[in-house]
Amino acid sequence: MKLATSIPHVGVLPCGEHGTITDVGGVKVGHFTLERGAYQTGVTVVLPHENDVFMNKVPAAVSIVNGFGKSAGLVQVQELGVLETPVALTNTFSVGAMVQAQIRQAVAAHPEIGREWATINPVVLECNDGTLNDIQAMVLDHEHYLAACRAASIQVAQGAVGAGRGMTCFGLKGGIGTSSRVVRMPDDRVFTVGALVLANFGVPDALMIDGEPIGRMLAGHLESFNNEQVEKGSIIMLIATDAPLDARQLRRLSLRAAAGLAHTGSFFGHQSGDISLAFSTNYTLPEDPGAPAPAVAMLHETWLEHLFRAAADGTEQAILNALWHAETVVGRDGNRRYGLKEILSKIPLS
Amino acid sequence: MKLATSIPHVGVLPCGEHGTITDVGGVKVGHFTLERGAYQTGVTVVLPHENDVFMNKVPAAVSIVNGFGKSAGLVQVQELGVLETPVALTNTFSVGAMVQAQIRQAVAAHPEIGREWATINPVVLECNDGTLNDIQAMVLDHEHYLAACRAASIQVAQGAVGAGRGMTCFGLKGGIGTSSRVVRMPDDRVFTVGALVLANFGVPDALMIDGEPIGRMLAGHLESFNNEQVEKGSIIMLIATDAPLDARQLRRLSLRAAAGLAHTGSFFGHQSGDISLAFSTNYTLPEDPGAPAPAVAMLHETWLEHLFRAAADGTEQAILNALWHAETVVGRDGNRRYGLKEILSKIPLS
Amino acid sequence: MKLATSIPHVGVLPCGEHGTITDVGGVKVGHFTLERGAYQTGVTVVLPHENDVFMNKVPAAVSIVNGFGKSAGLVQVQELGVLETPVALTNTFSVGAMVQAQIRQAVAAHPEIGREWATINPVVLECNDGTLNDIQAMVLDHEHYLAACRAASIQVAQGAVGAGRGMTCFGLKGGIGTSSRVVRMPDDRVFTVGALVLANFGVPDALMIDGEPIGRMLAGHLESFNNEQVEKGSIIMLIATDAPLDARQLRRLSLRAAAGLAHTGSFFGHQSGDISLAFSTNYTLPEDPGAPAPAVAMLHETWLEHLFRAAADGTEQAILNALWHAETVVGRDGNRRYGLKEILSKIPLS
Amino acid sequence: MKLATSIPHVGVLPCGEHGTITDVGGVKVGHFTLERGAYQTGVTVVLPHENDVFMNKVPAAVSIVNGFGKSAGLVQVQELGVLETPVALTNTFSVGAMVQAQIRQAVAAHPEIGREWATINPVVLECNDGTLNDIQAMVLDHEHYLAACRAASIQVAQGAVGAGRGMTCFGLKGGIGTSSRVVRMPDDRVFTVGALVLANFGVPDALMIDGEPIGRMLAGHLESFNNEQVEKGSIIMLIATDAPLDARQLRRLSLRAAAGLAHTGSFFGHQSGDISLAFSTNYTLPEDPGAPAPAVAMLHETWLEHLFRAAADGTEQAILNALWHAETVVGRDGNRRYGLKEILSKIPLS
Repeated sequence: MKLATSIPHVGVLPCGEHGTITDVGGVKVGHFTLERGAYQTGVTVVLPHENDVFMNKVPAAVSIVNGFGKSAGLVQVQELGVLETPVALTNTFSVGAMVQAQIRQAVAAHPEIGREWATINPVVLECNDGTLNDIQAMVLDHEHYLAACRAASIQVAQGAVGAGRGMTCFGLKGGIGTSSRVVRMPDDRVFTVGALVLANFGVPDALMIDGEPIGRMLAGHLESFNNEQVEKGSIIMLIATDAPLDARQLRRLSLRAAAGLAHTGSFFGHQSGDISLAFSTNYTLPEDPGAPAPAVAMLHETWLEHLFRAAADGTEQAILNALWHAETVVGRDGNRRYGLKEILSKIPLS
Repeated sequence: MKLATSIPHVGVLPCGEHGTITDVGGVKVGHFTLERGAYQTGVTVVLPHENDVFMNKVPAAVSIVNGFGKSAGLVQVQELGVLETPVALTNTFSVGAMVQAQIRQAVAAHPEIGREWATINPVVLECNDGTLNDIQAMVLDHEHYLAACRAASIQVAQGAVGAGRGMTCFGLKGGIGTSSRVVRMPDDRVFTVGALVLANFGVPDALMIDGEPIGRMLAGHLESFNNEQVEKGSIIMLIATDAPLDARQLRRLSLRAAAGLAHTGSFFGHQSGDISLAFSTNYTLPEDPGAPAPAVAMLHETWLEHLFRAAADGTEQAILNALWHAETVVGRDGNRRYGLKEILSKIPLS
Repeated sequence: MKLATSIPHVGVLPCGEHGTITDVGGVKVGHFTLERGAYQTGVTVVLPHENDVFMNKVPAAVSIVNGFGKSAGLVQVQELGVLETPVALTNTFSVGAMVQAQIRQAVAAHPEIGREWATINPVVLECNDGTLNDIQAMVLDHEHYLAACRAASIQVAQGAVGAGRGMTCFGLKGGIGTSSRVVRMPDDRVFTVGALVLANFGVPDALMIDGEPIGRMLAGHLESFNNEQVEKGSIIMLIATDAPLDARQLRRLSLRAAAGLAHTGSFFGHQSGDISLAFSTNYTLPEDPGAPAPAVAMLHETWLEHLFRAAADGTEQAILNALWHAETVVGRDGNRRYGLKEILSKIPLS
Repeated sequence: MKLATSIPHVGVLPCGEHGTITDVGGVKVGHFTLERGAYQTGVTVVLPHENDVFMNKVPAAVSIVNGFGKSAGLVQVQELGVLETPVALTNTFSVGAMVQAQIRQAVAAHPEIGREWATINPVVLECNDGTLNDIQAMVLDHEHYLAACRAASIQVAQGAVGAGRGMTCFGLKGGIGTSSRVVRMPDDRVFTVGALVLANFGVPDALMIDGEPIGRMLAGHLESFNNEQVEKGSIIMLIATDAPLDARQLRRLSLRAAAGLAHTGSFFGHQSGDISLAFSTNYTLPEDPGAPAPAVAMLHETWLEHLFRAAADGTEQAILNALWHAETVVGRDGNRRYGLKEILSKIPLS
C-alpha cells in the first residue's frame, strides 16, 4: 500500500515550489513550540506580508462552518473585510493571552492605537489540545507570541509543532499541515492558493485518505494504542492567495475549505469548531484614509471556480500533511497520540 | 467491480423501511413528469405531513451553501423558522409559476389569506435543466403542481422523474434521489433522518463513489457519449427528521448535507446553487395564536452529532441513488445524458 | 404647525437636483399604475443604468432587517454581489408574474440565456396591498412590467403610484417615496445617495415626523376615517449611490436604511418584511469573463460614515415623502386610506 | 423644559418595579469601578440567574448591527444559542483578561472543564474608553472580574460606573444605563423585558431625547466644555426577558434594540461596534445530556410583536438613563466628559 511510504497528492492541480502556504508570495509562518511534560502546546503565526499589517491591511473573510469555537476577531473581519494583525493559532485557553500579545505588539509599533487612533482587532484562532496539554495551566504568554513572530519564515515545519503540538486528529496525532496549489486562469495568469490547517478534529473510524477508508482499518487498533477515550476537536483552516479577490469573493473561497475537510471524513461534528479564514496578498488597504486606495481589477466571478477547486484540494492535502508529519506525542497524565507514520509501521494494513 | 450491479450503502448507519425520505413518518412525495420532445422537465413536491401545512407549520431551516440560485421563500424560512407550504422542486424558469400555484392552492383552502389574514410564503427550489429541457418555453403551470400534489405517496420514484426529469449530474443523467438513515440515541430513542435531492451538479471527472474515482474513469468516455459540452448545475438537498429539533438545530442539521455532497466530489462550484433545507415532523406550530403551542423537549445539543452523520451519509446516498436510478434521456435539440447503469454496461471499468 | 404646508427636510445634508433617487446619474424609475375598482396596485421598476443590466451588472447588496417577506432574487444578490436585472417592486402575490416577466425580457434580449448561457436572477421586491387591492386576483402580468420599464424616466412620481398604489403606511395612505442626499468627502469628491421606498408599514400611533409624535395626534381620528381595522405591512428600501463601493460596503450601507426607518416610528414589527437593497452605479461588472474587469479604487472604509448618514436620512425622507404625496385611495370592498395631506386638512393639529 | 428635571418615559408600555434589567426575575448586575487618575474604567457583569450558568445554560442570541468590535464569544452563541457564563462588559483592551477570568472561574467550579469536559465559551463585550481611560495600561484583571461578580445585586447603579466608568455618549459622559418594560399578552400572561446598555456612541449633534434635537442645542457648547475632539464609539445592548423564547426568537428580539438605538440619533456609525445580545430566563438547558430537557411551549411568533416594542423602547430608555445618571468624569491627560445633568445646569436650553 503506497500510503506506507508517502502521502498521496490530492487532485489534479500542481503544487507550488515548497508545497506550503508560503508559496503565496510574502506569506511567512512562525512557530513557538512548548514541549515540557504536561505542557504540550504552542503558538503558530501566519504573516500575510512583511510590512506593518495594521497600516497595510489585507482583504480577508471568514466562513463559520461550525461555530463551536472561541476564536477572537472574527466578527470584525466579517464586517470590515480586512485582517490588520498576523493570524495567531493557539490552544483554546490561550486566546486571551494572545489577544493581549497582539494588542501590545501593535501599541508598541503605534502608540496612537487606543488613543488618537482606533483600537486594533486581534485575530486569534484556536483548537482544544486538552488531552495532551494541561490547558488549564494557561502557560502561554506574550513572549511566546513574539517568539513565534520572530521565527516566521517561508520554511514551514509541519505536524506536532507550534499550535499543533498537542492536537489530535482522527484519534491520531494531529497538528499543523500546509499545502499549495498553482492555478492557471483562462487568460494565462497564474495564481497560487495556499492552505494551512490546525487539525484537531475527526472521529477515528471516519478517516479517508485518497478514497481509502484508513480510519476503519485503524479504528480497532487505535484503542489499544491510545490510553484514554478518543474525542473529536476542531479545525482551523487558513487559505491564502495572490489572486485579486475582494472580501465577498474571499468568503466564498474560504467556504470551499469545508469541501476538502469533508473529503477526509469530517461531517462537521457538533463539537468541532470548524472555521476557515481566507485572505489575499494581491493588494493592501491603507489604514490612512488619505493614502491612495488601490485600484484593483478583481477576478471575474466565473474564474473563482478554479480557485475553489484549489482551496478544497489544498485543504484536504494540508490535513493529510498534518497527519503525515506529526510524530507521536506523550503529554499530560501520560496521554499519548500516535503519529500516522509510526502507527503504520506497527499495523500492517493489507 | 461491485458498482456494476448495485450502489453501495454509504456509512455505518442502517436505512429505514423504504430507504426513502418517506421513512420519516407523515412525509409524502409526489411527481409530475413531463417527457415530450424538447420538454423534459417536471415538478416534485414534498409534503411534511398529511394535514394543512399553513395551519400547522413545521419547524424548518436553510443552509445556503452556494447562493447561485433562484429559489423562492428561503428568506422567510430563515426568519420565522417554519415551512407553511409543501416544498416544490422544479426547473429554474418555472419558479414563478409554482409560486403562483402554491398561492392559489392556499387561497383555495383559506380565502382569508391576503385579506383578513397575512399572505403565505411559497417555497419553491430549483435547478437548471436547460440542457435537456427547453426551459425558455416555461411549459409548467398550476395544474402540474396540483398533479404532483395529488400523486404524493410514500412510494418515491427516483431518477429521471418529476423535477429531476431533465437534470444532469457529473455529466451523467441526474435527477431525484432519496434515502433514509435510522439513528439510535444514547437514551435508546430512535429517530429517522430522510434525504431527498434534486441532483444537477458536478464536474464529470470529480465523481467519487464509495471512495472510487469513478468520474476519472468515465470522464474520457463521457465526451463521446454526450453530444455537447458538459456543464455543472446545482443541487437541492432536503432533510427530514422526526427528531424534536428547533429551527436553529435544523439549520445546523441542514448544513451537514454539504459534507455528504462533498463526499461525492463536489467542491461547491461557483455556478452551482447548492441549497439545503431541513424540517422536523416531530411537532407542528399553529397559525392561530390562540391555539395551544406545543411544549416540546428539544433534543440535547450534544446528540445532534448522531443526526449530523445521518444527514451527511443520507445526502451522499441520495445523490448516488439519483445517479443509479436515472435512465438515459434525450431532450432538446437531441441533447442526451446517459444513465449511470447504461454507461456502465457499455464501458468496462477495470 | 409647519407640517400642514410641507414635509420637513430630514437632517443636515443637502438633497440633489430633483430630490429623488434619479439624482444618482443613470438611474431611472418607471411606474405602471392600475386603478380600477377593486384593483388598486401596480409595478415600479428601478433601472440602475441605461444599458443592458445583464451584460453590465452593478454591484449590489441586501440587508434583511426583518425577513417576513416573499421577495425574489435576494439569495443570489447576497452570494454574488450584483444586480443583473432592473429591480421590480410590486404586490406580494404578483412576485411570480414579475419573475416570469423579467426572465422573458432577458431571454428576448439574449436568447442564449437558459441555453448556452446561465440563467438570470430576477429581483422582485414586494409589499402586501391586500387591504385596498384585490390581491387574490393576481391581475398583474408581463405587459404591466414592460409598461413600467418603458415609462422609466428621471422624473419620479410619488405617493399612490406604481407598486405603491394600494399600500398603507401608519394607517395612512402609503406608497412610493424617494429622496436624495449629496455628500462631500474629506478629499472634496462629491457623491450622491438616493433612496426609494415602497412604504406599507407602521403602527398608526407610532408615526414620528421630525421628532413630533404625529401618530399619537392622529391615532384617535384615524379609526373614524378608516373603515376597517388597521394593520401593519412591510417596507422595501432601495439605496443607490455613485460612490465606488463594493458589495460588502453596500451591505453596510443598505443596513443604515433601517436607522432612517426607525426614526419614523418603526420598531421592525414582526409581520413587516423590512428589506433594504443598495447598489452602486460607479462601475459595472461584465457578464463576459473575457471583457476587461474594472479597476476601481473603492472608497476608504472610514468615509462610509458620511454615506451612512445620507442613507439613514434619505430613507427617512423618502418615507415622509411617500406619506406626503399619497392621495386618498378607495379600493377593494370600499376600503379606504386617507392621504396625510387630506387628513391634515380635516384634523386641526394644535 | 421638562428635561431639566427628569428623563422622559419612552413609549406607552409601563416599566417594572425597579425600572432596571433586574426586574426580569433572577437577573443580577454587579460592577467593579476603577477611578484612579488616568485609570477610569471597570467591569460590569450580568448574571442571568443565581445558579451555575455552565451547568444550566440560558437560551441566547446576538445581533451584530455593526461588527466594528472585539467582543468575545459571539460566534459560539450564534451557533449553539446559549449563554454558559455571566456576560461581562469592559473596555476593549481588557477583553483578553476577562476571557481568562471567566475560564478560571469556570474551571474553579468544574475542574473537568478542558479535561474530561469540553471548554467553556467566555462572553465578554466591550467598548473603547480610551479617551478618559489609559486603555493601553490594561489594568483590569481576574480579581476585578470576581469583584464585579461578588457585587451582583438586583440594585443596579447607573452612569459612570463599572464598565461605563470611562465611556462617552454623544460627546457627553456615557456609561451604564438600564430599564424595563412590562408587557401583557393577549392571553393575559405578563412578561418583562429588561435592557442594559454600555453606551459609548454617538455624534454629539445627533442626540434626540423624546423627539427633541437636544444634540443640536448642545453641540456648540460641548466643544467649549470638552477639551479635545469628540469621537464616536460603540454600544453594547443586553436584552433580558422572562418570556419563553428560543434562540431564533431571541435573535429577532435582540435586533429590535437597534430601533431604540436609532431613536436616540444613531445611524449605526462606521466605527461604532453596535452589538445586541438577548437571553431568556424562562427556562434553562442542562449541560448534562442525561438530564431531562425542558419541555417549553414557546411564545407564538405573532406575539413577539409586543416584546419587540418593549425591546426598542427599553433600549432607548436605557441609553437615556445612562446619560441622565452619568456624572462628569475627568481622566487620562485631563480629558473630561460632562454629565448631561451638569451641562444642563450650565446651559439654559430655551
